This record gives sequence, C-alpha cells and structure tokens, in this order.
Amino acid sequence: MEKKIITISREFGSGGRTIGRMVAEKLGIPFYDKELVEQVALESGFAPKFVEEHGEHAPASSRLAYAFAAQGVPGIMNGLSTADFLWNIQCNVILQLAEKGPCVIVGRNADYILKDRTDVLHVFIHADIASRADRIVRLYGESEKSPEARLNEKDKRRRINYHHYTGQNWGVAENYDICLKSNVIGIEKCAEIIVDMAKG
Amino acid sequence: MEKKIITISREFGSGGRTIGRMVAEKLGIPFYDKELVEQVALESGFAPKFVEEHGEHAPASSRLAYAFAAQGVPGIMNGLSTADFLWNIQCNVILQLAEKGPCVIVGRNADYILKDRTDVLHVFIHADIASRADRIVRLYGESEKSPEARLNEKDKRRRINYHHYTGQNWGVAENYDICLKSNVIGIEKCAEIIVDMAKG
Repeated sequence: MEKKIITISREFGSGGRTIGRMVAEKLGIPFYDKELVEQVALESGFAPKFVEEHGEHAPASSRLAYAFAAQGVPGIMNGLSTADFLWNIQCNVILQLAEKGPCVIVGRNADYILKDRTDVLHVFIHADIASRADRIVRLYGESEKSPEARLNEKDKRRRINYHHYTGQNWGVAENYDICLKSNVIGIEKCAEIIVDMAKG
Repeated sequence: MEKKIITISREFGSGGRTIGRMVAEKLGIPFYDKELVEQVALESGFAPKFVEEHGEHAPASSRLAYAFAAQGVPGIMNGLSTADFLWNIQCNVILQLAEKGPCVIVGRNADYILKDRTDVLHVFIHADIASRADRIVRLYGESEKSPEARLNEKDKRRRINYHHYTGQNWGVAENYDICLKSNVIGIEKCAEIIVDMAKG
C-alpha cells in the first residue's frame, strides 16, 4: 500500500534528519522539522529555541524550566507543566499537518501521534556510537571532548520523553515499519530504501 | 560494502523463515535453519527435535529437561547444563558455517554469534500480533484457540534465551542493520530489500 506520510524517528547524530530531507526531496513532498518547531512555537507562545530544546526532552527538565518560561504566557497553560502543554500543542500540529497531505515528519514522537493512520510509514534511523560521535563533531561543530557523553545524555533524555508520553520503549523494532543502521547502510541508500517503500 | 552472510532473527509467525529462504534462493547461497539444527544434533548426540525445541528457548526449561536428556550422552557435557552445552555447540557450528562461505542463517542468535564479522548483514523480521496469529493458524496448523497466548509464550522464551546468552535485549533496533515489519511491507518485498542491501 502506498504510504503518504513518513515519520522518521532517529538517534541523535545518526543522519536521520538528512535522510528525511533527502526522502522529501525525492518524493517532492514537504519536510517538517524546524518548520514544525516554529509552528508549535507560534501556537504556544514559547521561543522556537525553547520548543526545540524541550519538545523531545525529558519532562523533568521541562518542569524545571516551567518557572522561567511560563512567565511569558500567563494564564493559558491551564495548570499543565510546560512539557505537557508543549506535548498537547505538538500533537495537534502533527495531526493537522498529516491532514494537509503527504509529508515527511522528523522526530517529535510523530510515530506514536500518527499510529492510528494506515497511510503512514514509520521509520527509525540509528547508528553505532562511534559514527554518531564522529558525525556530531564533524557536522554540528560539537566539541571533540567526550561527544559520546553528550550522545548518551541526549539519548537518555529522548528515551525518557518518549516513554513518558507514549508508554512505549524507544528504539524497539516493533514500534516501526522499518529500522535502518545508517553507518552500515549509508545515508543515501537509506533514503533510497525509504522512497522505494513509500511507493509501495 | 557487500555482505556475504545474512542472519535473520525473527518473531515467531512473522514469516522470517520464509523470507530467509527466498533471500537464499535469490542470491543462490545456502540456507541454514533445520539443516543447522540437524548438524548441532549430530554433534551433540541429542535428537534433532530436542535441539529444535531447546536451542532458542529459555535456559530454565532446558535445565528442567537436563535430567532426562543428558542420560543419552553420558560424560561429554563437562558439567554444563543442557542449554549451555547446546549453546557452545551452536556457536561453533555457526562460526564454522560462516567460515565456509556466503549463506543465510535463520535464528539461533546468529546475529550475536557473528557480531564481530564485518561481512554480515543482520536482519530482524517482526509483525503485529494479529497477523502472526493468523499466520501460525493458517500455515503451521496451530490451534485456532488462543494463538496469541502461544505467541506470547514463544516470544517470552526467545527473549529470555537471547538475553541470557547475549546480554542484549531481544528486538531492539540497534542490534540489527535492518528491521522490517513484514505485515506492513509484505513478505516478497522484505526479501527484495534484503537482497538489494546484501549486494551493497
């Protein structure tokens, strides 16, 4: 069956975002990553950078930020924590984007949010820690000092966030239609496989 | 990089064995599944049916069977439990098969046993429980009464066995190069993707 929407969940530094952009270009459909963040920011009243930092991270850290961030949006959070408030908006934005038509959505637990649609292909991109460490130093200008520690911290926060909001475990094969190890398969090849599968 | 050997781990009823056989046929290389079991049986002195039952199952149940089964092979188990004894032989057989040349190996924790080789493509095949239940009733003649309970029991035993011998968690994406949900992608398409990837 043809899949109109593609969600790409990814480990930090695995190249999942690059693969998502390639897939969107090859299929000629919109790619939502930063755009999604901006829309959530617009609807929530938070700064885009804040949404980007907290939309996929552990709720505990977001609760800590609550006291500071909520001051800018008095009275509209209905007693929710910052994380829960962002989660609700994020769910709505993703459901609306999916209604608009074919697209690629990277991250933001979109796999779970769109799990009830049958026209969605759910992808997970991962890679071994050495190649991810190399990638974040090379492409993102991350410090060469202990990139592995930064990866472990980021992984841990995403894992906690995912489990908190979905009740599922992060990175478990059964949550996705296809999981690819990008350092073995190659970024370009991953994109080709996904495009091929999306066409059914 | 071209991958000469393909390991296929699979959930019971997901069609992983069928996919493995298709891949082997398409690539014109040997397919090891029952053949592997028979070779292990030959080297261990156990009956093939016993090896098939216990080679991928929880060590606890194998220990229970120890008292009965070990009577047939006095003196050669060096104080190991039946499960540990089978595991050692299984490791040796799989390492030897991989040395012999290109092949497809289904199950038997071969992904872990061959993890240090760089010419191996590690595949995990899974499917949702409804389609697995349908498959085991339709193809294996399993009772139509609670096939889900049988699947859960089988999954549990494989999970325990895998964790016991590998220290890794069963079905986690990072242990494999590619994971495919066969009921979404289709059996034939899964085989095509794997063949394509094996060619590099």
